[in-house]
Amino acid sequence: MRGNAIIGQSGGPTSVINASLVGAVDAARGVPDITGIYGMRFAIEGFLQGALVDLGAQSPARLRKLRKTPSSALGSCRHKLKDEELPRILEMLKKYDIRYFFLVGGNDSMDTIHRVEAFCRREGYELRGVGIPKTVDNDLYGTDHTPGFGSAATYVARSVAQAGVLARDMQKVDKFVVFQTVGRDAGWLAAAAALAKKEESQAPHLIYVPEKPFDRERCLADVQRCIDKHGFCSIVCGEGTKYADGTPVSASNTRDGFANIEFGAMGGTSAAMMIHRMISDSLKVRGEFQVPESLQMCASDRVSPLDIEEAYLCGGEAVRLALKGVTGVMVSLVRPEGAYRTTLGTVPLSEVAVHAKPMPEHFLNAEGNFPTQEFTDYARPLIGKLENYGTVKMVKPKAL
Amino acid sequence: MRGNAIIGQSGGPTSVINASLVGAVDAARGVPDITGIYGMRFAIEGFLQGALVDLGAQSPARLRKLRKTPSSALGSCRHKLKDEELPRILEMLKKYDIRYFFLVGGNDSMDTIHRVEAFCRREGYELRGVGIPKTVDNDLYGTDHTPGFGSAATYVARSVAQAGVLARDMQKVDKFVVFQTVGRDAGWLAAAAALAKKEESQAPHLIYVPEKPFDRERCLADVQRCIDKHGFCSIVCGEGTKYADGTPVSASNTRDGFANIEFGAMGGTSAAMMIHRMISDSLKVRGEFQVPESLQMCASDRVSPLDIEEAYLCGGEAVRLALKGVTGVMVSLVRPEGAYRTTLGTVPLSEVAVHAKPMPEHFLNAEGNFPTQEFTDYARPLIGKLENYGTVKMVKPKAL
Repeated sequence: MRGNAIIGQSGGPTSVINASLVGAVDAARGVPDITGIYGMRFAIEGFLQGALVDLGAQSPARLRKLRKTPSSALGSCRHKLKDEELPRILEMLKKYDIRYFFLVGGNDSMDTIHRVEAFCRREGYELRGVGIPKTVDNDLYGTDHTPGFGSAATYVARSVAQAGVLARDMQKVDKFVVFQTVGRDAGWLAAAAALAKKEESQAPHLIYVPEKPFDRERCLADVQRCIDKHGFCSIVCGEGTKYADGTPVSASNTRDGFANIEFGAMGGTSAAMMIHRMISDSLKVRGEFQVPESLQMCASDRVSPLDIEEAYLCGGEAVRLALKGVTGVMVSLVRPEGAYRTTLGTVPLSEVAVHAKPMPEHFLNAEGNFPTQEFTDYARPLIGKLENYGTVKMVKPKAL
Repeated sequence: MRGNAIIGQSGGPTSVINASLVGAVDAARGVPDITGIYGMRFAIEGFLQGALVDLGAQSPARLRKLRKTPSSALGSCRHKLKDEELPRILEMLKKYDIRYFFLVGGNDSMDTIHRVEAFCRREGYELRGVGIPKTVDNDLYGTDHTPGFGSAATYVARSVAQAGVLARDMQKVDKFVVFQTVGRDAGWLAAAAALAKKEESQAPHLIYVPEKPFDRERCLADVQRCIDKHGFCSIVCGEGTKYADGTPVSASNTRDGFANIEFGAMGGTSAAMMIHRMISDSLKVRGEFQVPESLQMCASDRVSPLDIEEAYLCGGEAVRLALKGVTGVMVSLVRPEGAYRTTLGTVPLSEVAVHAKPMPEHFLNAEGNFPTQEFTDYARPLIGKLENYGTVKMVKPKAL
């Protein structure tokens, strides 16, 4: 089938989503069936307004540079496609003679492709729609992991390792540090901090994820025990960490003299800040919280080499599948038996759109405060090299 | 003069303070006058308790590794030395036959060396005390800049550049980002974010420092203008940014329905959070704040190569000076005329101890919302290489 191809980048950015874009452009270039390759400015939101760009006009040098540029160069959006917008989409597809439709994104983006492709089929317009997976949260259904996760995980593990060394050395001043990762519903990224740990005394000591209920009293006891044993405590929490009743930790009541203000309701607060406050108030120790927010999603100098390579491959694979006539699927990463190597597969868009992928039970310990060895075995091949700073052996001077 | 040497690391850590430690140890090793080289655990606090370690027992391999390890391997403290503790210090110096006394630190540490050295002189105990400069804040008097600043500045500029690309691409969702640097009294580190900017549209757009009063209305107007022009706004603030009346921005009153709670007074808040809240409330736009805290002081993978080299040199220079009979000074970095090259000097400890070094007037613009070209010319040689991500030229597709 001859026609133009279009690609968009949707949802939150990653350090490697441009690699997927370039992978798709590289695979589409020079293919007789693909007459032109366009990009959507600001994903489906821009497409609805006719904001298209000609990706074929980008120089190879610019594309090589783009491959290592973080975030979504085309611009992104979080527009949830409405049914009444589908005719407008079809109109644009016809106007630009687009027969190949790609989005790099998460489950909302897969839902968009799925609905556009189904609508076109009903309307008798032939269109091949393939999704390219992306999310730092790693909670996309039907794929072993998502491009974007490995790099964000590298940022997280490295940050926690470095801040752990600092917390150890500054224990006479500050007794704890709370690092917050993104991830509203899934704890993959917070759990990835565990990869920083080589010895029991090292950071991180406690990791809280949305999948396991946060228990205030147990946390306080664990932190105190850790300070007693190691002199300091390194805590990592996912932003969506919740109490057993479902209340986000970020919305906790404070326990001060100010009539239990709800921080969460006032906006601009975070789980790390609330855990920090809880510990400093209850244990009467100083500490700090670290909220890097989207910095963990765009650190191009901390990408996982495998991640950027897989992101590129997934982009190209989507184009190759569409050229073979495949439609209605997302490219997936499949974990082979034995040693890790990149293996591609597909999963129906209809399934990705309606499922999520929280961390499975066996990846988290029973206490709900750390991932298991099974999780670190899973995650280790995906992330970049981490420094092991080790410790200075403190030798007492001989008596004079 | 023959005797043992001792070295401690004091105050907040940096990514390169261990390089200074190793520089001193390397310079002291094998010198006939220095019979042994000791380290203080947790600086003067540990020294008072007799917590010494034998640095001569560290293997050359371990020292090479330590040179690239962030934070203060000996452990640090923020103990302000009391006069009544001086006799105990002298007792320890005598007990361990210490004749060479070094601290890597800021002005409090320089004050400590100064007083220890003066006390010993009065008591007739010969001691040579030399300071090694350190602080990410760059506000140490008598030196062009301080080891630690260039690496923290690299972390800041790189983070702001990356988050700026992300903010540009996500402008359909979030309109602004506020990044907070450390630096309670001086804005050097916040100002260093300006090095990320190559074109007017790029991040950062507004930089607030403690040296210039923060004006709420002007900030809001500037942010709105920037969003109108570029689609997004990148803001950087030093943690100690203040209003004209001296109130820290982090202690501002909120303007919600909750009876003007003082966030600052409740602890665990920050200037970035307050600016974030002010903008989102007043301009009715979404944005995020980023508070990496001490992550910017320990990112060993983002050191400035010059910084780590100068940190090492300053450590060695302190030992060489003391061996020549110099005492009562801190090693300084002197900026030569013309192209930058590392040049060492000295400054009396008595002066470093009592002065600070805020940013000079000509390094900040009249509006108080950005550093001048003179500042970026000053800072550029000191920081590591920054990526310039550039922009994708958006070419409209030809009409079909």
